[in-house]
Amino acid sequence: MNFEYLSIRCRHGHLEILDQTLLPHEEVWLNANEVSEMFDHIKRLAVRGAPLIAVAAVACLAVQASREGTTAEKLIKDTLHLKSSRPTAVNLMHMSDELTSQLRQSDPSSNPRDLVLKVAEDVIKKEVQMNQSMSRHGASLIQNGENILTHCNTGSLATPGVGTALGVIREAHRQGKNIHVYVDETRPLLQGGRLTAYELKSEGIPFTIICDNMAGFLMSQKKIDRVLVGSDRIATNGDFANKIGTYSLAVLADYHKIPFHPVAPASTVDPDCSSGNEIPIEERNPAEVLGVSGSQSVQWAPTGSNVYNPAFDVTPGHLVTSIILDTGVYDRQSIQNGSLHKLKFFDSKEK
Amino acid sequence: MNFEYLSIRCRHGHLEILDQTLLPHEEVWLNANEVSEMFDHIKRLAVRGAPLIAVAAVACLAVQASREGTTAEKLIKDTLHLKSSRPTAVNLMHMSDELTSQLRQSDPSSNPRDLVLKVAEDVIKKEVQMNQSMSRHGASLIQNGENILTHCNTGSLATPGVGTALGVIREAHRQGKNIHVYVDETRPLLQGGRLTAYELKSEGIPFTIICDNMAGFLMSQKKIDRVLVGSDRIATNGDFANKIGTYSLAVLADYHKIPFHPVAPASTVDPDCSSGNEIPIEERNPAEVLGVSGSQSVQWAPTGSNVYNPAFDVTPGHLVTSIILDTGVYDRQSIQNGSLHKLKFFDSKEK
Repeated sequence: MNFEYLSIRCRHGHLEILDQTLLPHEEVWLNANEVSEMFDHIKRLAVRGAPLIAVAAVACLAVQASREGTTAEKLIKDTLHLKSSRPTAVNLMHMSDELTSQLRQSDPSSNPRDLVLKVAEDVIKKEVQMNQSMSRHGASLIQNGENILTHCNTGSLATPGVGTALGVIREAHRQGKNIHVYVDETRPLLQGGRLTAYELKSEGIPFTIICDNMAGFLMSQKKIDRVLVGSDRIATNGDFANKIGTYSLAVLADYHKIPFHPVAPASTVDPDCSSGNEIPIEERNPAEVLGVSGSQSVQWAPTGSNVYNPAFDVTPGHLVTSIILDTGVYDRQSIQNGSLHKLKFFDSKEK
Repeated sequence: MNFEYLSIRCRHGHLEILDQTLLPHEEVWLNANEVSEMFDHIKRLAVRGAPLIAVAAVACLAVQASREGTTAEKLIKDTLHLKSSRPTAVNLMHMSDELTSQLRQSDPSSNPRDLVLKVAEDVIKKEVQMNQSMSRHGASLIQNGENILTHCNTGSLATPGVGTALGVIREAHRQGKNIHVYVDETRPLLQGGRLTAYELKSEGIPFTIICDNMAGFLMSQKKIDRVLVGSDRIATNGDFANKIGTYSLAVLADYHKIPFHPVAPASTVDPDCSSGNEIPIEERNPAEVLGVSGSQSVQWAPTGSNVYNPAFDVTPGHLVTSIILDTGVYDRQSIQNGSLHKLKFFDSKEK
């Protein structure tokens, strides 16, 4: 297994991830061959982005499977351990469920190596393809000269392809649509100010960084034509979980009648989740809110202050203009008519 | 002139301000006797808060007036220079206009010392009294057990008294109302996470710090019963300017049907400003958004990134539940009926 993407690479069986907590100032590659290492990298967001953590986890499991004497039983245990690293994103969950199901059905006497390698290659290949499809579907909605607001990082650092919301932006720019991007800095971990700015700068796409609390004021000044965000899990009624702050943007966009779209692979739809109430929301370390950490760390709030730090929030489907998936663009009407339920069968059939 | 407040003090004619950019970690007092020093302190927010910058400016002018040979002409020049330090807050403007008007009308042969000292003492005394009145008016609205969201810092660091929005919170706590405060950290300068947390902690008022982009999600979970914010300028139609992020909170509160109130002295109403469109919005240094500075500085965004950094935004009066002034509580209906216009005459009469 050999591959190389912007923030994950595997060469001669040696898996490494780019430490995203240190970007944009330092580019440090970390060993990720061991399950315990990868668990730690995912947990502390050194590798992040819903699609990418599924890819990182399955690649790490493929490395394990390649080792002499690894059993299906051991691989199932490792898979379940990695699955527990982050609770909100569904991609990791889907991959884990698929892999453990195949391992349980496999011949106990056979070597699970080929099975795991095939799943890993499928996951990565499908992810890259889905990125391309959704970026084309999304870009078809973008008008020339639009100012697009985005939140968090949903680009090539968060996926093995061009990205989800940022993939749409990239494709619209590639088509010469003369767009400009407002980048929410995305507290507390600043994925917008650090990572999205880093990607847009390196691609030469015009952008302006704002603090998260400025978005409403910009909308009131008619400076924003469209909002594109990623998604970590989509319920079949159109509710979806994404980086904390997404819900506020959805309410603000609705108030100002600005089109608002989550962009994600169809695998982000969780067929077992009928509404946003069922999506678990990860709460993270208070230190993230008391200050900022990365290549340098600063705490500015008084030590011992109480903090509430949900990593995600849930946006109800009725605030969504349309959901952009690799399988197409789904507006409110079609979601209400059950189009996301139909994806369930589509997904099952594929498996 | 001798006085001592939490963040400004004058002893034996020596004026000092507490450098608020270094709080909560360092308490450093800076000389502020010279106009050039005070201009710099106000400009870089070492001294901040709409009521406090008016107090700081007039105290500095009183120090000048106490010096041998200072002329009214020189004092007018100094006043206009200090007035130009920050464009949005009306308090500094009011004080400057009042003082220059009195100086221009004064006998050129008389020493302006007594005149300036009297204006300074009046401004400070009135500010303290207004703080007390508005905190009592506001606290009368607070129910037992409320969770109150506040933004920026509007306490004893921002005023010479108990504060505006934070004064209401302080008074409700003093009355034993068992309140809990959610503190928006308030990017980019983190006045919530640094200064409001510092004040609440030292007063023993229960609080929880959140990132600005979490407020909407908390509202959707019914964790917030009321929003209290300060104001830097109020138009006679009820529109008001306040720290960037206030407008987003107002839209979110309106959507969730949560009471939303600016709290300010009646002098914040600008009789010459009939709507928010007329309020100038200060734009500040991009470096504030590219990272964070204070006792320690970190830049996390790529160098050379474009930034938009408005320090304030304007909230339309129709999103306000009621405005809490020292002269009373004004609901939408009374504002529409011209109650803020009437304050104009009240103010003029006082002068």
